[in-house]
Formats: sequence, C-alpha cells, structure tokens
Amino acid sequence: MADETLRIALWQTAGDPGNDAAANLDRLEAAAAGAAAAGAGLLVAPEMFLSGYAIGREAAARGAEPAEGPAFRRAAQIARRHGIALAYGYPERGGDGAVYNAAVLVGADGTLLLNYRKTHLFAELDRSMFAPGQEIGRLAQLGAFRVGLLICYDVEHPEAVRSLALAGADLVIVPTANMKPHERVSHLVVPARAFENSVYVAYANRVGREGALDYLGLSCVGGPSGVNVALAGEGEEMIVAELSRGALEAARRFNTYLADRRPDLYGPLANAASARHTTAA
Amino acid sequence: MADETLRIALWQTAGDPGNDAAANLDRLEAAAAGAAAAGAGLLVAPEMFLSGYAIGREAAARGAEPAEGPAFRRAAQIARRHGIALAYGYPERGGDGAVYNAAVLVGADGTLLLNYRKTHLFAELDRSMFAPGQEIGRLAQLGAFRVGLLICYDVEHPEAVRSLALAGADLVIVPTANMKPHERVSHLVVPARAFENSVYVAYANRVGREGALDYLGLSCVGGPSGVNVALAGEGEEMIVAELSRGALEAARRFNTYLADRRPDLYGPLANAASARHTTAA
Repeated sequence: MADETLRIALWQTAGDPGNDAAANLDRLEAAAAGAAAAGAGLLVAPEMFLSGYAIGREAAARGAEPAEGPAFRRAAQIARRHGIALAYGYPERGGDGAVYNAAVLVGADGTLLLNYRKTHLFAELDRSMFAPGQEIGRLAQLGAFRVGLLICYDVEHPEAVRSLALAGADLVIVPTANMKPHERVSHLVVPARAFENSVYVAYANRVGREGALDYLGLSCVGGPSGVNVALAGEGEEMIVAELSRGALEAARRFNTYLADRRPDLYGPLANAASARHTTAA
Repeated sequence: MADETLRIALWQTAGDPGNDAAANLDRLEAAAAGAAAAGAGLLVAPEMFLSGYAIGREAAARGAEPAEGPAFRRAAQIARRHGIALAYGYPERGGDGAVYNAAVLVGADGTLLLNYRKTHLFAELDRSMFAPGQEIGRLAQLGAFRVGLLICYDVEHPEAVRSLALAGADLVIVPTANMKPHERVSHLVVPARAFENSVYVAYANRVGREGALDYLGLSCVGGPSGVNVALAGEGEEMIVAELSRGALEAARRFNTYLADRRPDLYGPLANAASARHTTAA
C-alpha cells in the first residue's frame, strides 16, 4: 500500500500587527495561494495572526470576534477558493463575553474544523489580555491524519501534547509567538514532544519586533523520530514539510510509549494541590 | 551567598555481568575511590549493575536480594569508607517474593536513602524478569539537593520525571541500560526532561555487549537550561558534573513551568482507560 502523506506549509511572518484583521486576511490569501501552489493541504499561520499579539488588553478586546465571526467567514472563503485548510491565531470573543487567545482550523471546504483556546497562559503578557481556555483534546480529520491544536506556551508542557496524543492525534498544530531568548523550544522541546508521543508537531512562529518582544522565528516541524523534519531561519519565510503516515507507524512500532504508560501512578499529575518549585531566599 | 554545588560522577561501565555481585562490588569500590578522589559526593552506576541486565529470569531471581541484603551492606561499607553516596541498579527480592528491577541510593554514611523499583518496564526483556514497581515520588536529601530515582525507560515517559519534580526533586538519578539504536534518549530526551522540569537528570549507562544487546554509552547529565552539562562517549568512562543550586534557581525564574501547569485539565493523563495508538492494517 502506498504511503499516505500530507504536505503542510508553515508561514513564518511578522503579519501586520499595527493594522486590522482585513489587512492580515489579505496577506493570508496571498500566502494561501502560494502554499496551495506548492502542493500543501494545510497552511499554518502564527499565534494572534489576525490582530498582532502584544497589542494590550483594550486592542485585544476591540479586535475579538466570535469563532465564526466575520474574519472566520472571510478565511473560509480563502480556504475554499484555494482548496487548502488554514490554521491561525486570533482573539476570540467567547459566548461568555471573555476574550481568549484562540486558534482556528478551517477545512479546505470552508468548514470550522476546530476552535481552541490557549490553556497555558504565558506570564502577564497573556494574563493581562486573556481568559484561560478550559479544554484540551478535540481532534479533527485532515486527509489521513487526526489533528489537534495547541498555542505557543502550551507545547512546552508535556501534559498538553500528551493529552492530544492520548485522544489519538497524529499532528499537533501550534501557532506561536515565541521570542528571544527561548530558542530551546524549537531546537529541543518541539522535537522531544514529537518523539515522546510519536506525532508530528507543527510550530509556526512570528518574526520581527512587537514592542519589547523580538520574535525569533525558527518555526519547525518536529517528526516522530525526534528530529525537526523542517526548520526555518529567523526571517519571513514559508517552510514546507511532507508528513508520512508510514513514518508515524514506524515510530509507533519503535517507541511503544503510549501503551507502556502507567496511568495508575499518575494521579498526582492531575492534583491541583501539587507542589511548585520553591525559590530559596 | 556562595552557590551551593554538588559534584557527581557517572560511571559508564560494562560491569561484570558474567559474574556475581561480589566481583561487581569490588569494581564498585575501586570506582568509588576514584570518584571520591575527584571530589564527587555521589557515584552513579548503571541499571542492574550488580548482576548484569540481560541475564534471564532464572539468573535474575537467583541473584535477587532484599533492599538491605548482603550486597547493600557491602555497598554501605564502601560508601562509608570513601565518604561518597552511591546509586546503582540491582535485582531486588521484594517482601512479597516478587523480583523487581530496582535501584538504591546509599548515603555517604552508609544509610539506605532510597530504594526504587522500575515502574515502566521495557518490552519482554523486562517483563520476562521483573514485576513492575508501584510507586514514583520518594525523595532524599543529598547536600543542598533533593534527589529521586528512576530507571532507564522510566525517564522516557514525561510523567515519571514530572512526578518527581512535583514532589520537589532537584536531581533525578537514572541508572540505565540503553542499547543501540536508542541514541535519541541521551541527545534529546534527557535534556528535554531536565529543561521542562528545571531539574538535573543524571543518566548513567552501560557499555559493551550482553547477548544481543549492544549498549550505547552516551551517559549524560541534562541541565535545567536544556543542554547536557556532561556527555560520555561510547566506551568505559567516568564523567563528572558540577550541579549548581544557583543554576537551578535561575532556570526556575526563566521557566515557571510547574507554577503554570493546568492540573485541572490533566485528568485524562491518569485515566487507565486512556487511548493507545492504533496501527493501520
């Protein structure tokens, strides 16, 4: 049987954080056309792509839309027109009125496949703008691959990727906005997550400066054998990776991690009273 | 305030798997003397050091001793004589009659600080010889550092190291017997575990051949900044690393992972009915 594959494109971009969603959607359409021409079935844009990330509480609230709001409807048109699935970050206005750091996966037919709200908020930067998401684990089908979404800091927590792997994920899509000096995430953490879960991890970062933040690029696709099968530099760039179901199956025969877990011993991991590091005076 | 440090030695050795514990204890004494002369406060020997690892069910059962049996008493004498703590693997005969793949930490004063039974058994190799351990999370104090034990395959499971970090570990000691082609454990997994938990991980491997197994060496000490602060080659060798409490504290200010966890969302990790990868036909 021929291997089943999925070609994905990660769009490492500064976006247009000083402008509104319409300008970024124009840019998204051009990128989608390019990715589709390169044979990709999925284009991944960074965290908070539609609005910019370090924009402050008021701008985030002002730009926030419901998951299926006007920006989504425009993205759905782009997906349909170019026949490519799209994932990107945006500020979501929840039905509860709260603002979330969210990401959406739009199918090539324009349907909303997944909407995810960042669960692991990063420092005051996130906490000053967003309410935390309350769910990890939803998946959607993209060709022969089961896919889930995380956002940026989520992927640094092994529990988050494991949760998606246990739900059956083959590919974890991670829009991100990672800044210097956090290079170890691309070079170490992403390939480790892919290896320890026998999944692909697609980590699409911003570049350029936004206020005090200096985004580091280094978008990457961690493969199940524990190496980055694609890795960007530090500038504006689109990288393409070919995901292979055969490679996933081979990795799962080599490392039988999920079957060898001891969930009966992991109760303390889910205990909200679990300890934190103490810092000596 | 001056930094508090602990110098540790990892003894990468083939041991003497064709012989009994007495021969290996003689070798341990010589290594302990060398490590103490190098200023180390702890010497770590590989998994199943006293007996050899791939020795089969009958030999493992024949060589098994209680945690404080004759071999331990001899090791305690060695520790006292050279003023150095010792960690090593051995086959344990439990009070329940079962045989465990165990490791012990002996204080420099000869006291039993920790006894640990491998919880994540590796393939038929382990399962044909050993019962699984039922506990992760005990710690002991070694100088300024809180230390815990894991064995080999345990460290490849993020849940195992996380469990010790949540209990307050600064250093995770991992006697191992890792064979080709599993090099990614030393190059990727150990530094990732150290990074994602802001701990040191000391991974002491065997070398040489035992039956069909070709041990790969590459003993290493993963540091909290996500790099191996010491890494051995592929032959018989002792490597030394200086652990720094100041480096731990700095890493914990840089990455506030434990404080930023979402244990309220991690219930599925501890659910024994959680999914496994399915392999396509």
